[in-house]
Amino acid sequence: MMPALLPVQPLTRAAFAPFGDVIETAGARHFPINNGTTERYHDLARVQLLGPEARALVSIAVAQPIALPFTVRMLERHPLGSQAFVPLGGRRFLVVVAGADLQPLAFLACAGQGVNYHANVWHHPLLALDAPSEFLLVDRGGPGDNCEEVNLPQHWTLAA
Amino acid sequence: MMPALLPVQPLTRAAFAPFGDVIETAGARHFPINNGTTERYHDLARVQLLGPEARALVSIAVAQPIALPFTVRMLERHPLGSQAFVPLGGRRFLVVVAGADLQPLAFLACAGQGVNYHANVWHHPLLALDAPSEFLLVDRGGPGDNCEEVNLPQHWTLAA
Repeated sequence: MMPALLPVQPLTRAAFAPFGDVIETAGARHFPINNGTTERYHDLARVQLLGPEARALVSIAVAQPIALPFTVRMLERHPLGSQAFVPLGGRRFLVVVAGADLQPLAFLACAGQGVNYHANVWHHPLLALDAPSEFLLVDRGGPGDNCEEVNLPQHWTLAA
Repeated sequence: MMPALLPVQPLTRAAFAPFGDVIETAGARHFPINNGTTERYHDLARVQLLGPEARALVSIAVAQPIALPFTVRMLERHPLGSQAFVPLGGRRFLVVVAGADLQPLAFLACAGQGVNYHANVWHHPLLALDAPSEFLLVDRGGPGDNCEEVNLPQHWTLAA
């Protein structure tokens, strides 16, 4: 199969809205707390914890960087919960998502940006760049099968 | 009132256990995900979302640094939920907590460490050091009065 080229676009709230949330201070609602010493950029992600006995998990994911060009061959989704990834070291990373038609879109998340995939949104597993990268991960724990994978009928190349 | 000196100790899971969780990879349970390209340090904080219509919030807090010496005069607590703070830039920060007797303990959180205050645990608002510091914040949203403050009968000095 001949891969097609998947262009990479900047990550913006508007472009990403059909798939989830961009977690960043820029453009976010904020207000002072702690007697004015701290500014709170409030409620940046819709955390979805579906099904009985669901709970929120806070984890750290350490991802090895991919080499470019990289071929996107599969996607996954989580029917029972959202999944947020926020870089702990400010490193950029790639985000690939798709709608029900499995036509992917690729975004470059820059320093200061994290993402939250909404439940049931197709996305590629972590695509770190440049160096091993730590992410804070907020997702769902609990009973039930919460991961589906699909092999894409068309493969896609991410280039530098 | 003459403040007393509050010594600062290293932040360890064991010392912090009565108050909450230390969010760090060191010593945490972990396993590979994403076909082995990512290591997941799993379920590092007990996220408590109490009361009806509670939900998890993901926010970013930007804290101005304190100047040392700093006087601890008050603490707060959240009866309806936990509150996790994880530095997004790897900066160290100070953590002050207390049991029901309001006798405080101070910890220095170093690069790679975050904390999760359990519900109803007395703690000081964010104490950033060195420079304005961003934290990812995971706490509880929903109806109900979720913040109590107390003025300490004894003041405490945090020194360098």
